[in-house]
Amino acid sequence: MKYCFGVDIGGTFVKLGLFTVEGELLEKWQIKTRREDNSEHILPDIAESLEQKRIENKIEKNDILGVGFGTPGPVTEDGVAVCPANLDWKNKPVAKELSELTGYPCKGGNDVNVAGLGEMWRGGAKGYKNVVVVPIGTGIGAAIIYNGQIIVGTRGAAGEVGHIHVDDEIDKKCGCGAIGCVEQFSSATGLVRMAKKIIEETNRETSLRNFEVLEAKDVIDAAKAGDEVADGIFDKFCDYLGYSLAATAAVIDPEIFIIGGGVSKAGQVLVDRVQTYFVKYAWPGIRDIKFALATLGNDAGIYGAASMVIKKD
Amino acid sequence: MKYCFGVDIGGTFVKLGLFTVEGELLEKWQIKTRREDNSEHILPDIAESLEQKRIENKIEKNDILGVGFGTPGPVTEDGVAVCPANLDWKNKPVAKELSELTGYPCKGGNDVNVAGLGEMWRGGAKGYKNVVVVPIGTGIGAAIIYNGQIIVGTRGAAGEVGHIHVDDEIDKKCGCGAIGCVEQFSSATGLVRMAKKIIEETNRETSLRNFEVLEAKDVIDAAKAGDEVADGIFDKFCDYLGYSLAATAAVIDPEIFIIGGGVSKAGQVLVDRVQTYFVKYAWPGIRDIKFALATLGNDAGIYGAASMVIKKD
Repeated sequence: MKYCFGVDIGGTFVKLGLFTVEGELLEKWQIKTRREDNSEHILPDIAESLEQKRIENKIEKNDILGVGFGTPGPVTEDGVAVCPANLDWKNKPVAKELSELTGYPCKGGNDVNVAGLGEMWRGGAKGYKNVVVVPIGTGIGAAIIYNGQIIVGTRGAAGEVGHIHVDDEIDKKCGCGAIGCVEQFSSATGLVRMAKKIIEETNRETSLRNFEVLEAKDVIDAAKAGDEVADGIFDKFCDYLGYSLAATAAVIDPEIFIIGGGVSKAGQVLVDRVQTYFVKYAWPGIRDIKFALATLGNDAGIYGAASMVIKKD
Repeated sequence: MKYCFGVDIGGTFVKLGLFTVEGELLEKWQIKTRREDNSEHILPDIAESLEQKRIENKIEKNDILGVGFGTPGPVTEDGVAVCPANLDWKNKPVAKELSELTGYPCKGGNDVNVAGLGEMWRGGAKGYKNVVVVPIGTGIGAAIIYNGQIIVGTRGAAGEVGHIHVDDEIDKKCGCGAIGCVEQFSSATGLVRMAKKIIEETNRETSLRNFEVLEAKDVIDAAKAGDEVADGIFDKFCDYLGYSLAATAAVIDPEIFIIGGGVSKAGQVLVDRVQTYFVKYAWPGIRDIKFALATLGNDAGIYGAASMVIKKD
C-alpha cells in the first residue's frame, strides 16, 4: 500500500491528513500555526508532525509518495508561496523546503484551488474534469479546474469571480478597492451588510431585528422560515451570484459548479435558487451546466493537497 | 528547411497558406468551398490544391510537417468538426480524412480559436502565453488561450463571451435565444441596431440619418467626426464590451486582450475606449492587463492553423 500526506496551512492551524493513494483519509489532525520568528517554525513543525505520524502508523518511508500543501495567496507552479495572508512569508519556496525537511516530493498550490482539487478527487465534483468550485464565506473565491488542472492565471488571479462587477448603486468599497463586486452581496459578509442596511433604513417588519449579533446563517434561516425581508435579501444574494456564475460559464464552459464554504451549509435551497438565476442569465447553450454542494467541508484542502502528489493517468 | 500548411475552411472560400516552420508566410491563396454533394468535395479539393502548391514550390513531401485547419463550430481534440455553420458536415473527422488524403499529420480546431493561435504565434499577441483574442464582427467571439493552449470548454463553448448578459432593458432576442447579450450591443450588428433605434425613436440631430444603408463603420466614423448621437452609441458599445472583458479577466486572468474582427478596423480609438471601461469595471488586481489590436486580419486563421502542426518546446 502507498500513502501520501495532505497539508492545509492556515493562519491559525495547520490541518494534516494521511491518505492512501486511492483517496481514503486514514487519519486527520491539526497543529498550531506557530507564527513567531517570522513564521519560520511552521515547515519544521509540519515535517516533525508528519514523521511522527508515519512512525505511529508503522509506514515505511518508501511507501510515502509525497506531501501536498495549500496556502493562502498565489503559489507558483514550483510551489513558492508568494505572500500568504496571515503568514509572514514572502516568496517562500515551500515545496523545496518541505521536501528537504521531509525527504518526500512536495507540491502545492493556493488553498482555494487545492480545496477545489479535493472536491474533484473525492468530493462533490468526483468524476468531473471541468469544474468550478466556489467557496462562499467572508468572500467568494473560485477554483477553476480545466481538464483536471487548476487554471492559476497570469498573476495567480484566475477564479477571482467574487470581484465581477454586479451593482452600480452601492457606495461602499469592496475589500479589493473596487465598488459593486458580487462578493459585497453574495457572501456571508454581504448578507449581513444588506440585512443591517434594510433594518436601519426602513421600518419593514422582520425577525432580523431580534438579533443582537446578526450572522449570515440567521438571515438564511429567517428566509427559510418565511420572513419576507430576509427572503428578499437572500434572493438578491442568489441573483447576483447566479449572474456571476453565468458570466463565468460563458468564459470557461464547465461541466459543473460546486458551491462550498460556510454559507453552503444553507444546503440545497441555496443551490436551487442560485441555479434558477444562473439559468435566467446564461445563454441557452450552457443552461444545463450542473450545480451541486461541496461535500468535503473543511477537509477539502487536505484531500486536494494529497491528490497533487499522486500521478494521474 | 521544413514547411507546413494552414487551411481556413469557410462557407464560401477555403483560405490556404504555405509557411516555413519559423512562421514565415511564403504564399497564400484561396479556393472555392464546393458545397454540392453534401460538401464532400471540400477535403479532396484542399488535398489537391496543397499537393499542387508543394510541387510548384519544389518541396519534398518529407519536408512538410503537416496541415492545420480551422472550421466554424465546435471541433474535438482529435479534429472532428461537429456541426460547422455553412458546411453540410455532421461529426466530420476532418483531421483523419485530410491526413489520409494528403499523407501528412493533420490537426485542427474551431476557426475563432485557431485564429487566436495565429495572433499568438505571429500577430498582436506574439510573445504572450495567456491571451484572449476577441474578434468583433457580426457577433463577438473569443479565443481563450492559457499557457499557449486553447481552452475549448466542455461543449466547445468556452470563450462565448459575446453571450455575457449585460442589459435588462432590451426586448429583442439575441441570435442565441437569450435576451441582453453583450453582442446585441457591442458588435457590428449591435452598432447598427442601436443607431437605427435612436434614429427612429428620437428627433435628435445626427449625420447617421443621411445614410440609406447604415453600416457599423459609418457609426464609428461619425463618432470620430464628433457626431454626438454616434458617439453615444459607440460609447455604449465600448462600455458593455469593456464590462464583459472585465468579467472575463476576473475568471481567467490573461496577460493581454487582442481586439480583432471587422470592427477592429476602427483602430486604436476603439481599443482605448474599451480599455477605459475595462479599467472602470475590473478589480484593481487585474486593471493593468494589456490591450492591443489584432494584426493578422483575415490571415490569422491560416497562421494559427499552421502553428498547430508545429511541435512547440
